[in-house]
Parts: sequence; structure tokens; C-alpha cells
Amino acid sequence: MLNLLDSIPNVLLLGAGPSCCSPSTYHALSCPTLSHMDPYFIKIMDEIKSYLQQLMDTKNELTVPLSTSGSGGMEATFVNIVERGDKILVLENGSFSERMIDVAGRLGAEVTALHYPWGEPISVEEAAAQLKKEHYKAVAMVYAETSTGVLNPVEEIGALVKDSDTLLLVDAVPALGGIPIKVDEWGIDICYSGSQKCLSCPPGLAPITVSPKAIEVIKNRKTKVPNWYLDMNMIMGYWGGGQSRVYHHTAPVNMIYGLYQALYNIFEEGVDQVFARHMAAHHYLIEQIGQIGWELLVKDERYRLPVVNALKVPAGIDAAAFRSRLLNDYQIEVGGGYGSLDGKVIRIGLMGYNAQKYNVDRVIAAMKEIIAG
Amino acid sequence: MLNLLDSIPNVLLLGAGPSCCSPSTYHALSCPTLSHMDPYFIKIMDEIKSYLQQLMDTKNELTVPLSTSGSGGMEATFVNIVERGDKILVLENGSFSERMIDVAGRLGAEVTALHYPWGEPISVEEAAAQLKKEHYKAVAMVYAETSTGVLNPVEEIGALVKDSDTLLLVDAVPALGGIPIKVDEWGIDICYSGSQKCLSCPPGLAPITVSPKAIEVIKNRKTKVPNWYLDMNMIMGYWGGGQSRVYHHTAPVNMIYGLYQALYNIFEEGVDQVFARHMAAHHYLIEQIGQIGWELLVKDERYRLPVVNALKVPAGIDAAAFRSRLLNDYQIEVGGGYGSLDGKVIRIGLMGYNAQKYNVDRVIAAMKEIIAG
Repeated sequence: MLNLLDSIPNVLLLGAGPSCCSPSTYHALSCPTLSHMDPYFIKIMDEIKSYLQQLMDTKNELTVPLSTSGSGGMEATFVNIVERGDKILVLENGSFSERMIDVAGRLGAEVTALHYPWGEPISVEEAAAQLKKEHYKAVAMVYAETSTGVLNPVEEIGALVKDSDTLLLVDAVPALGGIPIKVDEWGIDICYSGSQKCLSCPPGLAPITVSPKAIEVIKNRKTKVPNWYLDMNMIMGYWGGGQSRVYHHTAPVNMIYGLYQALYNIFEEGVDQVFARHMAAHHYLIEQIGQIGWELLVKDERYRLPVVNALKVPAGIDAAAFRSRLLNDYQIEVGGGYGSLDGKVIRIGLMGYNAQKYNVDRVIAAMKEIIAG
Repeated sequence: MLNLLDSIPNVLLLGAGPSCCSPSTYHALSCPTLSHMDPYFIKIMDEIKSYLQQLMDTKNELTVPLSTSGSGGMEATFVNIVERGDKILVLENGSFSERMIDVAGRLGAEVTALHYPWGEPISVEEAAAQLKKEHYKAVAMVYAETSTGVLNPVEEIGALVKDSDTLLLVDAVPALGGIPIKVDEWGIDICYSGSQKCLSCPPGLAPITVSPKAIEVIKNRKTKVPNWYLDMNMIMGYWGGGQSRVYHHTAPVNMIYGLYQALYNIFEEGVDQVFARHMAAHHYLIEQIGQIGWELLVKDERYRLPVVNALKVPAGIDAAAFRSRLLNDYQIEVGGGYGSLDGKVIRIGLMGYNAQKYNVDRVIAAMKEIIAG
């Protein structure tokens, strides 16, 4: 019988995620499965909580990887907070904040959305004005917008709601492990991410942290969370302190091993060094694309997300064909444009294990050859 | 820095799941990550669909592994079908069918539940009478009840609703890959499982199949599915035929490799041989426990689930201490009793890679030593 795994191509993943993993993380996935209630496995869970708390810069006790992809992190955030008729403010400037409107709306939220052009940051002033005009249970935004390469001003929005009963819900999917995120200092109440971006673990887990303020809201809901699988009340019981766990669902044990190793690698290298490496790769990419006359979609460098770079595709180049050539002839994956940016940008991710100058050299060399024709 | 993965104990997982994986499946998890939209990865996805269709004995086009644990399969089943006020009949005789009542209730279903003693099967006659008395959108039941070791008569319930517009929703978490399940012939509309039981893949995926009749119900909902992450309309778009996929969420790529290999192994051995191996291990266990005076909770052998065996703990034996000794002194995990069976049974799983007579010998030898004191 033909086994497709025998000839998996080795692709350099410079798209919008997943990124490649280190050899040690691939190896970790193949360690022998333990029971999800095994005392030794619980030690690994505890270590992961501690690593995530440090990386998210938070003391939140409820800081865990959910057994879903990053998209499930968004689902968990809204389904635990929203009850029918709740007012939610969404600051929309990309595909993932656009999705928030859909996710919250399905749960019966009354969503107000402020919209901004894709490639530009959200406006703190307009958000402030809206928050004065109306009271919201939560304001939701994307810190690091994978679809556009925009970094949004979370800290400034946090300052607006910190001393109110409005919650701040933040998508940080491609940020975690690549750039700083200060959950407590910025006043974020729920922040979620994905394992497959700057953490350089395969996709399948959604790290999430929930503030005591958000936990109070969840505990005081009038209705049960309409999602048993992602009900934080029960997830707390499983991931809660010590050995007295309550079985909820069966955690994806081997993925948890992978996340443990991926986090271990970050702390072994040093968090500041890891952030500096990401920034250096980003600046090197800007320099290199400048030399071939390409430029970033995001003009103002304060709002550039260093780990996902949206490059404007010059006139005369077919973005889809360009990406196909990179994949088929050079074994390099880069991302396409999303929604209204389809065909207009390609996205180069420099995330986690892949955030290295030599990977920039490799993709730039390939791009030059393709452009030369 | 201490790395906990360096000294993971090698435990024989004879509990209620997860089970151990074959070396080839552990290895598969460590193959290089591809993009979730990579053409080569899509080939692997297509193969998995085909394997699952064969193993579930169904022509259903929508037969895919969801990016959740088995519990997420239950969530997906109910959240796609239930709209507020819908009448759902649950046949309850164990922990997982009990959970169905909660899951459906959270979504606003009007649940009628018929209750049966844990350790006994549900009653087809009473279900038939109830279905005559009232019209239900769906009847839900557990085929293979992990918590009690009961095998419920799905085929007979299927015959009751096959020609009506009532849907049949079936939990088959520990069944798939260990015992036959005939989705089309039995008239099952949604059937879900988990990767970590008889498939011998690590936990983290929920294979699910959805009949055309159920898809019609989902497509004709009056309200959107109140769960973006598990909305089958979008999951169909990602897992749908050919290369024209629509991005939904990022699939857990390396877990999908593991599932591919686990399914490959089953088909290489031969499905009938695999089922026979499970049955042989089960009968051997019954014979062996008989010799030490223990017996199964489920009296009627027609309703015994061969892959999870609930053993009544004789008077004078502390079930929790007994299990701890097996784990700590013999590196064997067995399951405890659940809910009302806590302390009264231990559960021995003989699933997938572990369904071997030599594993029965190992656990029985350990049990004898512990009993001898």
C-alpha cells in the first residue's frame, strides 16, 4: 500500500502560518502517549501554564491551551462572554476582526462595528468616542492582524476600559512568542493565540488567558455557556491547580508535548532574544524587498506587525501564479491576500523557528529568479 | 533546564482511552508540517475521508475528522442540528448520554430523556413507544458507552426512525476501528468518534460523518449555527471535494498525519482481522478474570462492549488504591468508575494497538500480585 507520509515534501513555511517547527518539537510529538489524567502529564500541563503566563506577561490563573485551533480560541472567547442581547463593540480592520462580528452575532450579541481600511490601524479616538456614547459589555479587537500585517494599538484601547466594567477581548494569534504582549499591564481580559505561528508548534492548540474580571462575568452569567466543549467553568476544573483535576474532555496529549517543547525552546533561547530575532528578520526583509522595488502594505511603521509582512504585488505580476512558482519550484510557501486584498498582496511570515535572515535570503533569491523570468 | 519530556514514563494504556499508538503512528506525528492548504496535504485529507467512509460503512460525502477531541464531536453534532425549542429525545444509560442532555439543553433544545440503569442497555420498546407518542427532530444515543461498557442496540433504533424525518444521532467514540458500525445500513444520520480509542491515534481529532438527510436539516436551519468553529456548512467548504478548498480554520496538520497512519495501519492489517483481534482479546479477558473470581458489570453478553470492559470490584478492594498500584508499580493504566459507578468498577480498555492477548496477560498478572498483597 502506498503511504503518502513517505514522501511528504519539505516546504519552507513562510506563509501566514503554520510555520515550521524545530526538530526537537517534531520529536516531542512522537513521545509515548500518557493518559490525560496521568500525574506525570499533569506536571507537563502545569509547566505549560507557567510558560504561557510568562510569555503573555500575566498572573491570570486561567492561562491554558484550549484543545482547538486558534479559531476555536475566538469561539471560546465569545461564547463564554456573550449572552443574548449583550452589546459588543468590534474594532474591524481585517479578516479576523471581521470574523468576530460573525462569531458574536451567531451568539445573539448586538454588535456595533467600527470599520477601518484593511492595511491601516483602528482609530483609538473613534473607539473612545463610541465607548463614551454607549455602554458595552466588551470591546473586541485584533492585536496582530494576520490578514493585513497590521499591529493594532491594544494598550491604548486597554487604557480606555481598564477602570470600567467593559471587558477587552484580544486576538493575538500570530503575536504570541514573536512580539511582546503585556496582558495584565495593558488591561486585556481575554487574550487567545494559536500554536502554529510564532510558537512554532503544529496547529491544533489555542493558548488563552482569562482575567479574574472576565471570570467573574462568566461565573455570573444568567444562562449556561451554550457550548459544553468550550465552557471555561469546566476547563478551569480540568486545568485547575494541583492534582485534583476533574475530567472534562480528553486533552490532545501529544500536541501538548509539542507545545511544551516549543515553549521550552523559547525560554531556553531567552524571550528577549527571540523577540529581537523576529524584529531583525523583519527589518532585513524590508531592506531586501526595497532593493527589488517592492513595499509593505502598511505604511506607518508603528503599526507594522513584524511577524507577518503583507507585500504589495507590483502591477504586471499575477500573485497566485507567483505563489505557485514559489511553492512548486522552490518549496517555499508564502501567503496570498485575503478577502479584499486577494491578488493585491502576498504575505511573508517570519515566525518562530523560521524567523531567520537566511530564510529571508532564500525567499528573496527565489523571488528575484521568478521576476527575472 | 530540566526537560520533562526526557523522562516520560512508558505506560501501558489499558484505561478507557487514550490507548497506545503504534511506533509508525508516533513517527507520523513528527513528519514536517505542511500548510493546511498545501495540495499535498489535501491529498492526505482525501485519503483520510475515504478510509473513514470505509470504516464507518457509509457513502456520506461529509465524513471528516473535526479539529477537536471526541467531546467536540458531540458538541458539533448538537450545535448543527438543534435550534431553540427543537424537541430531542435522548436515550440515557451512562455518562456520555447523560452529557448529551446537558449539551442539547444548553443550545435551547426541549429534551426528553429516557433513563436506564448504568450497566444495562436502553430499551428499544420504550423508545418506540415514546417516538409514537411525540414527534422529535432527533433521537440521540450512545452506541458504545465508555463509562459502563454497554453496547446499545443502534440498529434497532435506526429501524424506528429510518423512514421518518427524525434524525438519529450516535456517539461511537470507543467503537470506531474496534467493532463494526454500519452507518448507512443502520440509518444513522450523524455519527462521531474520537481518534484516541480503537483508532490508536493520540487524542485530538473527532471523526464524524453526516448523512444527506442531516445536511438538508442543517442547510434549512432558520438560524445560523451558533458556533462558527464547528459550523458544518463551512467545514464542508474546507474538506469538500477536489482542490478548490475554502480556508476555514487551520487544521491540526500533524495530528492529521497521525490519523492517516493509524487508519493506514488498520487497512493494512485488514478491517475484519482488526475486529477479530479486538473480540479475541475481550473473550480472553473474560476468561482470565473469571479465573480470579471477578466479573463484568454487563451481564447480558449481547450488550457487552468488547473494547471497554467494566469489571465489578469485589468487596474489600479499594478501587482507587488498586488502580494507583497498577499505575505506580506496574506502569499500567486502567480506568476508574464514573459517576454512580465510582469505586464500584474498574474499566479495562483493549483498544486498537493494545488489543492483544499479551496485554491481558500483563494486566492479569499484575492484578494477581496486588490481590495476593
